[in-house]
Amino acid sequence: MAYEFKWVQRVEFADTDMAGIVHYANFFRYMEAAEHAFFRSLGFSIHTRLDGRSFGWPRVRAVCEYRSPLRFEDEVEIHLRVREKRSKSLTYDFTFRKLDGEEVAHGSLTVVCVAMDERTGQMKAAPIPEAIARQIEVAPEFSGEAVDSSIRD
Amino acid sequence: MAYEFKWVQRVEFADTDMAGIVHYANFFRYMEAAEHAFFRSLGFSIHTRLDGRSFGWPRVRAVCEYRSPLRFEDEVEIHLRVREKRSKSLTYDFTFRKLDGEEVAHGSLTVVCVAMDERTGQMKAAPIPEAIARQIEVAPEFSGEAVDSSIRD
Amino acid sequence: MAYEFKWVQRVEFADTDMAGIVHYANFFRYMEAAEHAFFRSLGFSIHTRLDGRSFGWPRVRAVCEYRSPLRFEDEVEIHLRVREKRSKSLTYDFTFRKLDGEEVAHGSLTVVCVAMDERTGQMKAAPIPEAIARQIEVAPEFSGEAVDSSIRD
Amino acid sequence: MAYEFKWVQRVEFADTDMAGIVHYANFFRYMEAAEHAFFRSLGFSIHTRLDGRSFGWPRVRAVCEYRSPLRFEDEVEIHLRVREKRSKSLTYDFTFRKLDGEEVAHGSLTVVCVAMDERTGQMKAAPIPEAIARQIEVAPEFSGEAVDSSIRD
Repeated sequence: MAYEFKWVQRVEFADTDMAGIVHYANFFRYMEAAEHAFFRSLGFSIHTRLDGRSFGWPRVRAVCEYRSPLRFEDEVEIHLRVREKRSKSLTYDFTFRKLDGEEVAHGSLTVVCVAMDERTGQMKAAPIPEAIARQIEVAPEFSGEAVDSSIRD
Repeated sequence: MAYEFKWVQRVEFADTDMAGIVHYANFFRYMEAAEHAFFRSLGFSIHTRLDGRSFGWPRVRAVCEYRSPLRFEDEVEIHLRVREKRSKSLTYDFTFRKLDGEEVAHGSLTVVCVAMDERTGQMKAAPIPEAIARQIEVAPEFSGEAVDSSIRD
Repeated sequence: MAYEFKWVQRVEFADTDMAGIVHYANFFRYMEAAEHAFFRSLGFSIHTRLDGRSFGWPRVRAVCEYRSPLRFEDEVEIHLRVREKRSKSLTYDFTFRKLDGEEVAHGSLTVVCVAMDERTGQMKAAPIPEAIARQIEVAPEFSGEAVDSSIRD
Repeated sequence: MAYEFKWVQRVEFADTDMAGIVHYANFFRYMEAAEHAFFRSLGFSIHTRLDGRSFGWPRVRAVCEYRSPLRFEDEVEIHLRVREKRSKSLTYDFTFRKLDGEEVAHGSLTVVCVAMDERTGQMKAAPIPEAIARQIEVAPEFSGEAVDSSIRD
């Protein structure tokens, strides 16, 4: 069972904007890179086929709060923690820290599991496949949490 | 005085991902394009120089909720409305609708006004320049709103 | 018959990098936006279905030469001209000019027409569908040109 | 003295497009990531300050030829080799190979060294700083090469 994952990202030149810092939309790319690396660490691809069905994880809500800028060639550690686990969805919490420990941003991402209907080619919300669900648990610091109003406003 | 702006964006091929839909991080690029067009509609650039000082608008919080996918060549209307106006910050609300009226996403963006300190080259939070502030007001539907907990969790 | 198309692009903030100018990879996004708008001007989408088959246009060669930088909120006219037309491929020439006429970049793009094989799901090079091919011709300034060694090195 | 560098890049989801493959413009981001890692391997940042002056490396020409698609989570090795070294410019050659050895793309990039004029704030072409120039040499396979017409069309 896993409830967290750490991923180090180096800021590329193309991630910056004319303000000299990482463009704010790119923090969402970094969160996703950490999420996908978390899945690989469990032995899965985020874009997976299980029991003859294709699964995907569309995003339903994404949030980021920016504390301090990231610059070219900075290395940032993205600490992913599972905040909520439901039958068909997951919410991740992300803390971005420079290697000296300074927190630069904090975000969250709620994703829904969908499976492709073979007849129609449409994606429909589906229970998280058991092989995946049994490997993921809520991080202890969030497990006693009441439903989090910041995630559902 | 302006409290809203509408901006139509056409989805480019490079905005899509292998799921065949607009990548979720690109909704934040679209919000920003609408914000900058709103400023141009007021006669300003977002990256402006007033009274001998350079101003910028770093983001402190960004949220997007996704209802329905956007696809290549879809045209989407982004309806920006000013949700909160403080001395040094603005919060925008964005509704994304296809031209048939279907709502595809809803987001918000809180930005802080910063001015460059000429001696140090550092950016520091500063009051919104009067020339800009006097042209922007909160949209009527948000003006009676208590401080919005969804923006400040 | 069409052999050229003009497309005006405004530089978005997210297109810039920390050098304060449009990131060089984004010129290729701009070329593609012009190419796709050219197809729309002919009544087609670049991602089309004709006679029961799906067609695509993968890129085989892309070049850009940079003369002068593009900055935030600049408007640039991209002049697409058809440089070469073969049974299964097209080569476009692109000139980027600011609205004052200054040339900022020059590029080319060679694309191959592919059709999806319904049995295998694989894409294979295919003749350009007649409905499209009959609307496109080589621009006069390139029509007498010997095979261009710069396109085929 | 160094004349080559190898850089492994994993394809992120956001790098793909609706055709299910890496968007063609992103190969130029990958080339640049390899170039900047090459500079770091020499002990420099591409965005450097030496002898009290700021240097940058704007691109003057970029080419990519695409042989075979790259997909999500593919790992690709980018083999950078120095193809040409002049007093104020460098040309790199890039070969993209999957880890099984399959060549997927081949590109080149010509960059010019510029220094900022402290009085005007303008960037001007400048000799490559000696500390950098003495560490870089042309790869043996290109050193006897006549001026390459494919790089200069």
